[in-house]
Amino acid sequence: MAALITTFGVGEMSACNAIAGAYSENVPIIDIVGSPNSKEQNEKKLLHHTLMDGNYEVFRKVYQNITEYTANLTPENAEIEIPKAIRIARESKKPVYVMVAIDLVTKPIVTHKLEEPEPAHSNQKSLQAALAHIREMLEGSRKMAALVDLAALRHGLEDSVQALVEKLNIPAASMMQGKSGFDESHTHYIGMYGGAFGSNQVRKIVEEADCVIAAGFLQSDMNFAKYTAKLDPMKMIVIQPDSVKVGEALYTNVMAEDMLRELHSIEYHQKEGTVPISFPNDVEANGEADHSIKAAYYYPRFQQMLKEKDIVVVDTGTLSYGMSQVRLPHGAAYIAQGGWQSIGYAAPAAFGACIAAPDQRVVLFTGDGSLQLTVQEISSMLEHGCKPIIFVLNNQGYTVEKILNVKTENQKYNQIPQWNYSKIPDVFGVPSFTAQVRTNYELDAAIKKAEKENADMLCLIELVVEDPMDAPEYLQKVRKHLEEQNQQAK
Amino acid sequence: MAALITTFGVGEMSACNAIAGAYSENVPIIDIVGSPNSKEQNEKKLLHHTLMDGNYEVFRKVYQNITEYTANLTPENAEIEIPKAIRIARESKKPVYVMVAIDLVTKPIVTHKLEEPEPAHSNQKSLQAALAHIREMLEGSRKMAALVDLAALRHGLEDSVQALVEKLNIPAASMMQGKSGFDESHTHYIGMYGGAFGSNQVRKIVEEADCVIAAGFLQSDMNFAKYTAKLDPMKMIVIQPDSVKVGEALYTNVMAEDMLRELHSIEYHQKEGTVPISFPNDVEANGEADHSIKAAYYYPRFQQMLKEKDIVVVDTGTLSYGMSQVRLPHGAAYIAQGGWQSIGYAAPAAFGACIAAPDQRVVLFTGDGSLQLTVQEISSMLEHGCKPIIFVLNNQGYTVEKILNVKTENQKYNQIPQWNYSKIPDVFGVPSFTAQVRTNYELDAAIKKAEKENADMLCLIELVVEDPMDAPEYLQKVRKHLEEQNQQAK
Repeated sequence: MAALITTFGVGEMSACNAIAGAYSENVPIIDIVGSPNSKEQNEKKLLHHTLMDGNYEVFRKVYQNITEYTANLTPENAEIEIPKAIRIARESKKPVYVMVAIDLVTKPIVTHKLEEPEPAHSNQKSLQAALAHIREMLEGSRKMAALVDLAALRHGLEDSVQALVEKLNIPAASMMQGKSGFDESHTHYIGMYGGAFGSNQVRKIVEEADCVIAAGFLQSDMNFAKYTAKLDPMKMIVIQPDSVKVGEALYTNVMAEDMLRELHSIEYHQKEGTVPISFPNDVEANGEADHSIKAAYYYPRFQQMLKEKDIVVVDTGTLSYGMSQVRLPHGAAYIAQGGWQSIGYAAPAAFGACIAAPDQRVVLFTGDGSLQLTVQEISSMLEHGCKPIIFVLNNQGYTVEKILNVKTENQKYNQIPQWNYSKIPDVFGVPSFTAQVRTNYELDAAIKKAEKENADMLCLIELVVEDPMDAPEYLQKVRKHLEEQNQQAK
Repeated sequence: MAALITTFGVGEMSACNAIAGAYSENVPIIDIVGSPNSKEQNEKKLLHHTLMDGNYEVFRKVYQNITEYTANLTPENAEIEIPKAIRIARESKKPVYVMVAIDLVTKPIVTHKLEEPEPAHSNQKSLQAALAHIREMLEGSRKMAALVDLAALRHGLEDSVQALVEKLNIPAASMMQGKSGFDESHTHYIGMYGGAFGSNQVRKIVEEADCVIAAGFLQSDMNFAKYTAKLDPMKMIVIQPDSVKVGEALYTNVMAEDMLRELHSIEYHQKEGTVPISFPNDVEANGEADHSIKAAYYYPRFQQMLKEKDIVVVDTGTLSYGMSQVRLPHGAAYIAQGGWQSIGYAAPAAFGACIAAPDQRVVLFTGDGSLQLTVQEISSMLEHGCKPIIFVLNNQGYTVEKILNVKTENQKYNQIPQWNYSKIPDVFGVPSFTAQVRTNYELDAAIKKAEKENADMLCLIELVVEDPMDAPEYLQKVRKHLEEQNQQAK
C-alpha cells in the first residue's frame, strides 16, 4: 500500500484528482493530512490554508466523497481509528483519509480494550450452493474460457486464477483494465478481449465459449469496448473479491480465493486448452529503416524491447490503446488508468514505481499532451536517482480525442504547444540520455542506446510521428465504429 | 468574473485546489462541468472518468463544500439555475458550480414566468442607527485612520473609501490581504499595517488612532501578523459588504456603499491628514554594483521598475512578504493569495491576468519552489502570445519554510531540485528573453533589457541569491518573534 502526506487545505485539495483516481482504480492509499493546532481549530481562527470561515471539517467532507473512510485522529480515538483505516484500505482496495492536528501528533494515545476484528470469510452454504450451480451450468460444456480483470489484479488473485486455468486446461484472456493480471507469456494466454476492437481470434474464442469464468470483472465502457463486447451473462461465472455470480444468480459472502480453490474440484478438462494464437504485435523488426515511424512499426518494437519483470507504465491516449495489444514478458507489471483515465497520471506513477521497486526497470510510455501536465515529475525522478526509460509520443496534440470525435475536426482545444521534449532534462539539470527519433532506424538505435545508458541515467526518447492522426489498429477500429454510429444517427 | 470549463471527474477533481482557493480569497468564478450523456447517467453505466460506482452526483457533492452554490442543469431548470448561479457568484464573490450533461447542452430550455430578484439594499433604520453610533464614537476623536482590506478590493469599494479618506482627511493603510485596495501613490497612503512585522511608523499611526475605519476587514492570521496586531475593537468601525460593526455592535443589512456615502455627512476633518512617511523600499539604486543580490537590494529595485497600471502577481513565499512592502504606482493591481497561500498559484494567475488585460503589463514574482509546481503555465503564456516579465527568485528551496520553522533546520523536505530556469523557454520552443543574475549590476542590466524586450517577447529573469536564508525585513522580524516565542515555551 502507498501513503500520501499532504498539508492541510492546499495540499489535500491538490490531491483530489489523484485520490479520486485511486478510488476509481481500486488502489489503496493511506492519505494523511496534517491540520492546524487543535486549539486554534476549536477557536475557529481564520488561519491561512482555510476557506476563511473557521470550518476545519470541510476538507474531510470533500474526501468523504472520494475515499472509503475518513477519520479525524485524536489521542482518544487514534488506537481505534488508525488500524481501522488501514484495514479498510487493505480490504476495500480504496484510499482512506486520516487527519491529525499538529499538536496532537506527539501526544500519548489513550488505550482501549480492543477485539481484533474477525477477517472476512466465506459463508460455506453460499459457497457450496454456488458450486452446485456451476456444476449444473457446466454440464455438457466443452469450450470454456477465462477472463481476468482489474479486481483480480488488485486482490492478488493472479496465481489462483492461473492454477485454475491450468487445471481446467482452458484459454485465458485479459480485459483492458485487467492487463497483466494473467501472465502474458503463459501458454494459455490468448491476448486481450476487446469486443469489436481487439483481436478477432480472441473475440471468437471468448464469445463462442459456452462458459466464461471472469475473475474481478468490471463492466466498464472501456472494458466493454463501447459496448461492442458480446458476453452472455447466462454463460458467465463472475468471481468477485467477496461474491460470485453464476448466470444471473448472485452468491454473496463468497471469498474469491475460496471459490477459485473449490473450482479445482470440478470435473472438467478441456480438450484443446491451448490454441495456436498470433498476437497483434508479434512482428519481427518491420518497416524500412528510413521509413517514418508509425504505430504499425513502433508497437512491435516496444513489445520486443520489453524484458521480464519490467514495470510498464502507460498514460491515457493512443498509447493506452496501442500498448494494451503489446504482449508482456513474464513477470512484467502493467500500470495504467483504464477507468479513471486522467491524462498526466503516468509520469508520477512511473516515479512511484521507481521508488517502490528500485531493482526493476521502469518503462514509461506517455503522450505529449499527457506529459505536459506533469512534466515536473521527471525532475522528481532525476532528483531521486530514478532511471526509467521514457518514451514520449509526439503526435502534435490530443490525437486520441481527434480520433474519438467523429463529428468535428481541427478543434483548437485538441492542439497543444510544441515542446522540445529532448531538452527537458537540461532544465532539470541532471545528465540524461535523450534522443529524438523520426525513422525506424533512429528508433532502433535509440532503444539500443537507451538499454545501455539506462544503467547510469534516465533515458528519454521522443518519437516524432509524421501523421498526427496515426493510431494503433484498435483505435482505428473504434473510429470506424463511431463513424458508422454517427452515420446511422443522421 | 472568470469562467472555468472542465471535463467531468478528472478535470474538475484537478481544479479543487484552484476553486477552494477562489472561495478562500473571495474570487467569483463560474465553474462549468460537462457530464456524460444523461441516459447513461440514469442507467448508472460504469463510464470512464467516474468512480466506477454509477454515482454521477459525487463530484458535485465534493464541490458543495468549496463553492457557494451548485446546480445540475436540465432543460427544466436552466432558465432559473443559470442566472441564479451567476447572481450568487457576483454577490458573494465566491465560486459557483454548474454541471450539464453533454446531450442536454443543445436542448431548448423550458421557460418560466420569473420575477427578477430584488437587489440587496440597506435597511435604513439599521444604517441610521449605525451612523448615530459612529457619531457618538467619534466625539472627541482627533486621530482617525483607515484600513483597507480584502473585501474592499473584491467588492470594488476602492473609490468610495478613497473619497471618504479625502473627505475626513485621514491617513490610510492597507492590510496584507488588502494590498492595492488603496492607491499606494495617494498622498494619504501610509503603507501596509503589519502589526509587529510591518513599518513601525504605520504601526504607531494605526495603533494610536482613537478610531479606525476598516473597510472589508478580515481577521486572518496573515493580516494580524501572527496576532501581533493590536487593534482595539472598541475603537473600530468595520465596514463589510453588507454590514457594519461599530465597536462591538453589529448592524446587519447595511450595504458598504451606502455606509461609506453616509459617512461623508460626519462632521470630521482631521488636522494632520497627511503625515510625512518613509516607505521601506524608498531607496535609490542601492548596493555596490558587483555585490551579490539580496532582499535589501532587489526589493527597492522592484519598486522602482514598476509602472502605472502594472498588474503585479506574486506567489507565496519570501516574495509575498517582501513585495507587500513595495509601494505600488498609481493604478497598479496586486494579485496574490494572502489567505489560501497555495504555492504555484502565481504563474497561472499571471497567465489569466495577461489574457484578461492584454493592454497592461504583467509582472510576475515567483519563487523557485512555487514555479516548479506550475511551470507549464509559462508554456501556456507563450502559446497565447503573452509577454509578462517574470522574476524567479532562486534561493535554493523553500526559504520561507526554513525561516518560519525555528525548531528544526536543514530539513530535507525544504530542499528542491536545482533547475536551470533560464532554459525553460528553450523547452517550450518560443523565443524569449532570459537572464540569470547574481549581482546588482546584472539585475539592473537585466531589468533594463527586459523593459525593452518585453514589447516583443516574454522575459524571464532568474535571481540567484548567495545566502538561501536571505529574506526581507518583514520576514526577519517574523523569525525573531517566533524564536522568542519558542524560547519562552522552553
